[in-house]
Amino acid sequence: MNKKIHVTDTILRDAHQSLIATRMRLEDMLPICDKLDKVGFWSLEVWGGATFDACVRFLKEDPWERLRKLRAALPNTRLQMLLRGQNLLGYRHYSDDVVKAFVAKAAVNGIDVFRIFDAMNDVRNLRTAIEAVKAAGKHAQGTISYTTSPVHTTASFVELAKRMQEKGVDSIAIKDMAGLLTPFATAELVGALKAEIDLPVFLHTHDTAGLGAMCQLKGVEAGADHIDTAISSFAWGTSHPGTESMVAALRGTPYDTGLDLELLQEIGLYFYNVRKKYHQFESEFTGIDTRVQVNQVPGGMMSNLANQLKEQGALHRINEVFEEIPKVRADLGFPPLVTPTSQIVGTQAVFNVLAGARYKTITNEVKLYLQGRYGRAPGEVNEHLRFQAIGSEEVIDVRPADLLKPEMARLRTEIGALAKSEEDVLTYAMFPDIGRKFLEEREAGTLQPEALLPIPTPGASASREGVPTE
Amino acid sequence: MNKKIHVTDTILRDAHQSLIATRMRLEDMLPICDKLDKVGFWSLEVWGGATFDACVRFLKEDPWERLRKLRAALPNTRLQMLLRGQNLLGYRHYSDDVVKAFVAKAAVNGIDVFRIFDAMNDVRNLRTAIEAVKAAGKHAQGTISYTTSPVHTTASFVELAKRMQEKGVDSIAIKDMAGLLTPFATAELVGALKAEIDLPVFLHTHDTAGLGAMCQLKGVEAGADHIDTAISSFAWGTSHPGTESMVAALRGTPYDTGLDLELLQEIGLYFYNVRKKYHQFESEFTGIDTRVQVNQVPGGMMSNLANQLKEQGALHRINEVFEEIPKVRADLGFPPLVTPTSQIVGTQAVFNVLAGARYKTITNEVKLYLQGRYGRAPGEVNEHLRFQAIGSEEVIDVRPADLLKPEMARLRTEIGALAKSEEDVLTYAMFPDIGRKFLEEREAGTLQPEALLPIPTPGASASREGVPTE
Ligand SMILES: [Co+2]
Ligand SMILES: [Co+2]
Repeated sequence: MNKKIHVTDTILRDAHQSLIATRMRLEDMLPICDKLDKVGFWSLEVWGGATFDACVRFLKEDPWERLRKLRAALPNTRLQMLLRGQNLLGYRHYSDDVVKAFVAKAAVNGIDVFRIFDAMNDVRNLRTAIEAVKAAGKHAQGTISYTTSPVHTTASFVELAKRMQEKGVDSIAIKDMAGLLTPFATAELVGALKAEIDLPVFLHTHDTAGLGAMCQLKGVEAGADHIDTAISSFAWGTSHPGTESMVAALRGTPYDTGLDLELLQEIGLYFYNVRKKYHQFESEFTGIDTRVQVNQVPGGMMSNLANQLKEQGALHRINEVFEEIPKVRADLGFPPLVTPTSQIVGTQAVFNVLAGARYKTITNEVKLYLQGRYGRAPGEVNEHLRFQAIGSEEVIDVRPADLLKPEMARLRTEIGALAKSEEDVLTYAMFPDIGRKFLEEREAGTLQPEALLPIPTPGASASREGVPTE
Repeated sequence: MNKKIHVTDTILRDAHQSLIATRMRLEDMLPICDKLDKVGFWSLEVWGGATFDACVRFLKEDPWERLRKLRAALPNTRLQMLLRGQNLLGYRHYSDDVVKAFVAKAAVNGIDVFRIFDAMNDVRNLRTAIEAVKAAGKHAQGTISYTTSPVHTTASFVELAKRMQEKGVDSIAIKDMAGLLTPFATAELVGALKAEIDLPVFLHTHDTAGLGAMCQLKGVEAGADHIDTAISSFAWGTSHPGTESMVAALRGTPYDTGLDLELLQEIGLYFYNVRKKYHQFESEFTGIDTRVQVNQVPGGMMSNLANQLKEQGALHRINEVFEEIPKVRADLGFPPLVTPTSQIVGTQAVFNVLAGARYKTITNEVKLYLQGRYGRAPGEVNEHLRFQAIGSEEVIDVRPADLLKPEMARLRTEIGALAKSEEDVLTYAMFPDIGRKFLEEREAGTLQPEALLPIPTPGASASREGVPTE
């Protein structure tokens, strides 16, 4: 039985987010869009995640303008985005009217497929976004934020998928942002989902621990319908398995992707040269590293923590922090570690280590978390810690956004004439400070992307002449 | 049913041969041997291949002395070498007395496992070496030099394995030096071998095209007993799948390797720092590149060709050479591309392109090949080419070494007092010019390893602070 496997390429979003801090500029995307559009990808992930932030903060690109230009340049390929549920692309919960407005505008400007996730896997935080996507007539993808813990089992993930199916999603994504999946765990999870859910399953796994390609292969054999890959020059390590490699692996098998390997190789060569331009954003934390399989700390979180500790002259204590993280995570009921929970857990762990006593200082985010303001924790939280953190303050049981009043009118007023469109209001909504700054600079005509360092000339290198092939 | 998978780590031979031109020095191996010896690898590949050449030519290390020191430092682990059959570690066929002497001395100095291959897969070229290994009471491994061509089928490889089994080998290795295997091809080949041969199967595949780990996983599921991996800091790309990753992939499954992931991570960190010292030998040709799956040109061969063309100011013609290589290979009856056939085919292809007419110049090696002096070609050679190359000169049908007289006595005489041991005579036998030079410099006390360039200080790099995990 032949079953064509569909491919989503992440080169324009997650791949460069994972490897060069989300810094790829539109000017390096547009020249290759013609070829990308010819490949026949099921979709291209091009927007959302950290790209909106990076555009406004560092690149001084209007993210909406980027989306429109990509839409025009990729007429034949679905465009996909990553959306943090009720957090959208910001770092707090938004009221429903903001969520609806944002999704509607993303759809109008070009997004076809919305991958919607919540760091807590609290389906209530996905509901409004899913409904808004359906109202826009687009593809709503429900996401399992994959993690491992005593409370995360195959059965619990299947249950989560079922609840997302009830909300009307068009497909299910397994999102292994940390590279925690193993090949056999993938086969088990995909198999269980396919047995119990009547929706296409997308497999998104990072190659952080060097297991990504094996997970995809086992996932495909277990029934996964779609895989997320990255063009080779921005693949592997904390990014995804290489597109060309997965296409080659499945070529001529019942799972053939049907994609043209030579065309992909041309695209790979293009991005190989593009990557050189961003050398200043390369990091030693993006290579394959199996430590996540031991300590569960995602790659991106490791590099953030290293920076945080370095600034405080405490880099030598990083291993203590790595040991503290699972303990904080247990105290909080085992949230998956992904934005924003990775920051919440990571920062508290740093405080616990540097203060010399656990929870001597408790961050405001941990307090909000323990109040239920991010949603329902996957497991039981440490009640002693909760009492210590918030005393007898109320713990909410409702969906966090139920407590929020509509915000769009206020946001429109606040940003005033700086906003030339509803999209501008939403930019401001996502990032009140840097969004406003962006709009002000645009008004003043002073937008200036961060500087790129010149490409270093290659150093001396010895000849490899005459080396035997074995 | 549980089936422990055995691991051979290549860090001390193939890994650095594949990534830094075989330049790792003994001084960087010895400090970590204690930990390597504790891991519980089935074997460590430490010798042979290009290491002998690199020791004598560049590092000015006595390769025999290296072997003895490694033997002493790794008392609990099998030591393994790669041997080019009747070519031993040199680039020509040796007489049987040299083969016997070499194998005997390698065994005495510390080798337990001899992986023996022939570039033509001509079992006659393996026979003497296999017998010598058995005579020394060591493990003789027969090798399938894997390739793809119209004459190489699963059945033909099984047939080859059967002939090696008849010669008394203790195990069979599938040696995919170029990264041509795909996961499903691996499963088919391993499955067929296990069905028809009653010997352990070792899987040695390079990750050149990014398929290595998937091939090993499918190979293991199909019955492979052993996999070859490399400690992560010298893994992937033209090297092998990372040891830590394969251990993590199989952990907790019926194929668990039983190896300690945290100990491996410590070793990985050690070699991560070692690798920096050899930065001048890093090459842009060692990354994952699926082109081999299209043009069948192994990674090591690509970089050799690039150097060769660059020296002649003809780098811009490399794609013509890549197109010519399969044609030359077909004319020669589809030999696998590995030392020495990779050089024979590659150099002739360069001549064919640069001369502007095919076979205007025919190399001496191609003439010898067409005379049968390297053994029997896997398929039919182009008879027109053969006539053009050697006219009516004799084509031999016997084993090439059958025409060689004993050589050891002559070699002993030639090198004279410069040789302090039989091992020295063998060093001279392998490399008459650089071997003699090495022994002369040793005599004069002027051995001087090639210089290493200082490690560059890291350049400026932007902070990645505050990057979301998704
Ligand atoms: Co991702
Ligand atoms: Co090899």
